[in-house]
Amino acid sequence: MEEELIGLEEKELFACCGSTQFAKEMASASPFPCLDGAVSAARHIWFNLVDVNGWLQAFSAHPQIGQSPSSHPKTDPTFAQLKILALPTATAIAYSIILFFIDLCRWSKGEQSTALATATDSTLQELFDWNARYRNKFGFVFLICASGRTSAEILAELKKRYPNRPIVEFEIAAQEQMKITELRLEKLFSAKPKAALTGYK
Amino acid sequence: MEEELIGLEEKELFACCGSTQFAKEMASASPFPCLDGAVSAARHIWFNLVDVNGWLQAFSAHPQIGQSPSSHPKTDPTFAQLKILALPTATAIAYSIILFFIDLCRWSKGEQSTALATATDSTLQELFDWNARYRNKFGFVFLICASGRTSAEILAELKKRYPNRPIVEFEIAAQEQMKITELRLEKLFSAKPKAALTGYK
Repeated sequence: MEEELIGLEEKELFACCGSTQFAKEMASASPFPCLDGAVSAARHIWFNLVDVNGWLQAFSAHPQIGQSPSSHPKTDPTFAQLKILALPTATAIAYSIILFFIDLCRWSKGEQSTALATATDSTLQELFDWNARYRNKFGFVFLICASGRTSAEILAELKKRYPNRPIVEFEIAAQEQMKITELRLEKLFSAKPKAALTGYK
Repeated sequence: MEEELIGLEEKELFACCGSTQFAKEMASASPFPCLDGAVSAARHIWFNLVDVNGWLQAFSAHPQIGQSPSSHPKTDPTFAQLKILALPTATAIAYSIILFFIDLCRWSKGEQSTALATATDSTLQELFDWNARYRNKFGFVFLICASGRTSAEILAELKKRYPNRPIVEFEIAAQEQMKITELRLEKLFSAKPKAALTGYK
């Protein structure tokens, strides 16, 4: 009996979670019979096989909203970040936060606008300030699966997590990254035409 | 009433624990009234203030015994490592392991020779092989406070820790690093002449 399997390529897996090791291991495990199978493999790979350098690599793939638009980034800025750096400061702050939310939410279903629709100028500024503090303390960007959350809820969560020890926050960020990855895998599966293959590889 | 305080400099603190942030924060907290005060400050700084990048920096300051002497190091090798790379393979393996133990133990009191005195050729080879596996899985060198332990005990501990999830092992390695740092602080204090200062800074 033939079973329909969904093949995922390394490049699109890297877009779901920016760790080279994650993308390679997932591509090796591909194709998958269903979304649940892919998510289960992703969780195993992310939490058991990807090392802490891989976690940091994936975190650094997100837009750096904790970074002041006028400061020099530690690594080469992306094209989108370069565009932000050229804007007036206030506009740049708002734009970088919007870019961040779009990045976190762009793969989710119809929930992209919750944080943006609820954001006020003062909330955006406070989010920017707290993100800078967070990045300064922990060494990586604040990560949260923003889908369906208001900007006030995100800000409250950031303040709540800020006092954590670095190792505790590191693991929470990894759990949030996994939620984001799951949403992206779901979106990827829903967009894929099912290819009838002759069996598991 | 005057109290005797011990001042520690950033450079010697960095030799105790190779994290720039740790050395800076400890130097800021210096001088200390006693060893216990310094250890207490060190524990607070290491576990609460130094971020995960700082932990990785400190881990990478130890000799890389998991690395094959014939392979190309990711970062520039130290002078000692260059010397190892130039040796015949078998000698190089033994030498790199000895260098590792010396590094872990060199600050402790009269316990430097336990691991070395108990090491057989086969134990050394197995330690080298398991260290390479460990480093390949976790992305950093196997860390253990080797003071007073035989090489067989160290090997057994390595094998026991190897199945851990990367985040779990990361925290264990940080705890071992702290034990090593404590031994080094103790050695540093015992070698320091007490300077009579007029009070806390």
